[in-house]
Amino acid sequence: MTNLIALDWGTSSLRAARLADDGLVLEERSLPRGILTVAPGGFPQVFEEICGDWMHAADALALICGMAGSRQGWVEAAYCACPAGFADVATRLTWVEPGRIAMVPGLTCDNEGVPDVIRGEETQIFGALELLGLDEATLVLPGTHSKWARVTAGRIARFSTFMTGEFYALLRQHSILARTMPDVDGDLDEAAFERGVGHALHSSTLLHSAFSARTLALFGRLPADALPSYLSGLVIGEELGAQHLAGGEDVVVIGSEALTRRYELALRLLGITAQRAGSEATWRGLRAIASTLRSGR
Amino acid sequence: MTNLIALDWGTSSLRAARLADDGLVLEERSLPRGILTVAPGGFPQVFEEICGDWMHAADALALICGMAGSRQGWVEAAYCACPAGFADVATRLTWVEPGRIAMVPGLTCDNEGVPDVIRGEETQIFGALELLGLDEATLVLPGTHSKWARVTAGRIARFSTFMTGEFYALLRQHSILARTMPDVDGDLDEAAFERGVGHALHSSTLLHSAFSARTLALFGRLPADALPSYLSGLVIGEELGAQHLAGGEDVVVIGSEALTRRYELALRLLGITAQRAGSEATWRGLRAIASTLRSGR
Repeated sequence: MTNLIALDWGTSSLRAARLADDGLVLEERSLPRGILTVAPGGFPQVFEEICGDWMHAADALALICGMAGSRQGWVEAAYCACPAGFADVATRLTWVEPGRIAMVPGLTCDNEGVPDVIRGEETQIFGALELLGLDEATLVLPGTHSKWARVTAGRIARFSTFMTGEFYALLRQHSILARTMPDVDGDLDEAAFERGVGHALHSSTLLHSAFSARTLALFGRLPADALPSYLSGLVIGEELGAQHLAGGEDVVVIGSEALTRRYELALRLLGITAQRAGSEATWRGLRAIASTLRSGR
Repeated sequence: MTNLIALDWGTSSLRAARLADDGLVLEERSLPRGILTVAPGGFPQVFEEICGDWMHAADALALICGMAGSRQGWVEAAYCACPAGFADVATRLTWVEPGRIAMVPGLTCDNEGVPDVIRGEETQIFGALELLGLDEATLVLPGTHSKWARVTAGRIARFSTFMTGEFYALLRQHSILARTMPDVDGDLDEAAFERGVGHALHSSTLLHSAFSARTLALFGRLPADALPSYLSGLVIGEELGAQHLAGGEDVVVIGSEALTRRYELALRLLGITAQRAGSEATWRGLRAIASTLRSGR
């Protein structure tokens, strides 16, 4: 385990870390080489670029999670069905180079006859569970496509995807709502954000509530500078409203500081406490998967 | 009343008709001169272009509904508050040229502290009520921004806006879902459309259900050609689900043949019958408003 090389290779970014046995991050690197920037056949070269030197160690093991394991990635790692825990994922690795480089599979889950998928988030979830010492939890990974997961007995029982960040970007940039907004988002206006969350929680659907960002502007009831924060509250409020969370419940939020702050504010309006886990969760998750391989190597 | 000239002047189109006393359309014209194409100050010239010759008659009266009465239009006609009927609107006309050219006001309505607005649809609703002989009805005007209205005792009691057509266009053109879709929509695939409606009706929010258009494609469970129809079903199903309609209720659908067909299919899944009214509703509504002016001229 001395030379575990952990890679988080997503759609738009690539991060790598060299980890010590105790999980300490010895060195960290990143490149703007998400899989969308890599031509077919180009993955070995980018891999060499980010961690070729680290791989010279005789016992080096690279574990890769994220979209690099998708059909558009380096090597396709078939989805693992839910419920799934560390061990399930660890036994379903797809080896790019036997014993040296492996791809962590994503998960699939059946939501009333419709499949849902995650790739990379399963590793963050496993890591967050370890970091927080939990084996029962409701977790959210906010982003372009937010993922909500329910963990029971240490395994991901089910999850579902919400296109929250993407809807925000579409409405912010391409919809009629953009016309009354400033060109660039300013700092978060917490009051406007919370007003948006509150309105979404009492509204039937975002198709309707989103229009309030237009009428409140038209009637001078919300200044233009506050509209992006208000709209962010509308989409996040819509996402939270769909979770049917019980007041008093904790939710683990895994994400960037800025997004975590928004979810924390929104959850508070529902009487729910957020526990935080950051990007370190990915390294911790990969280390946990690697530890199950120790006996087999 | 002999020379009523009716204009429907919207954001992206301009239609005009010369109507006989009995409502017969004597002549109809249209120009691609929606208000977005008209520079400030340019409205009289476009008006002259579409119906200047009709206005030569001594007793000509032009009634204009739609966005031409908005702040970005020719002359702003202040909103009339709900509940509002024919008579309320007729007494609140804004005269561009006294006794000759008038603008029909739009309506505003307070939905739990948030204002909502319509401009032009009020006239279509009044017209449809006359055409169908109704004074109690639930009506929908599908489109970029669908409007749902509840009429009691011949007056529009309340209404709300759903950005259904705009969400469809955003998701169809700019979202990740566009990547697995054909460049151009084909004919409506009714089975895929109804599958989308059904999924939306059982889903918590479009933020989640929209992602099914991606996963069903990824897993080969829906052919690419069927995806636009499926997505259309998702957004329309989301809109219908928010109305809490009672089975057995009738809904009046005012719109184009193609959109009306979609709403008819979707409403049928809820056990609801659609009554249709087409573009003739606008002329009928303007005639009804004009008829209240007869005594005063």
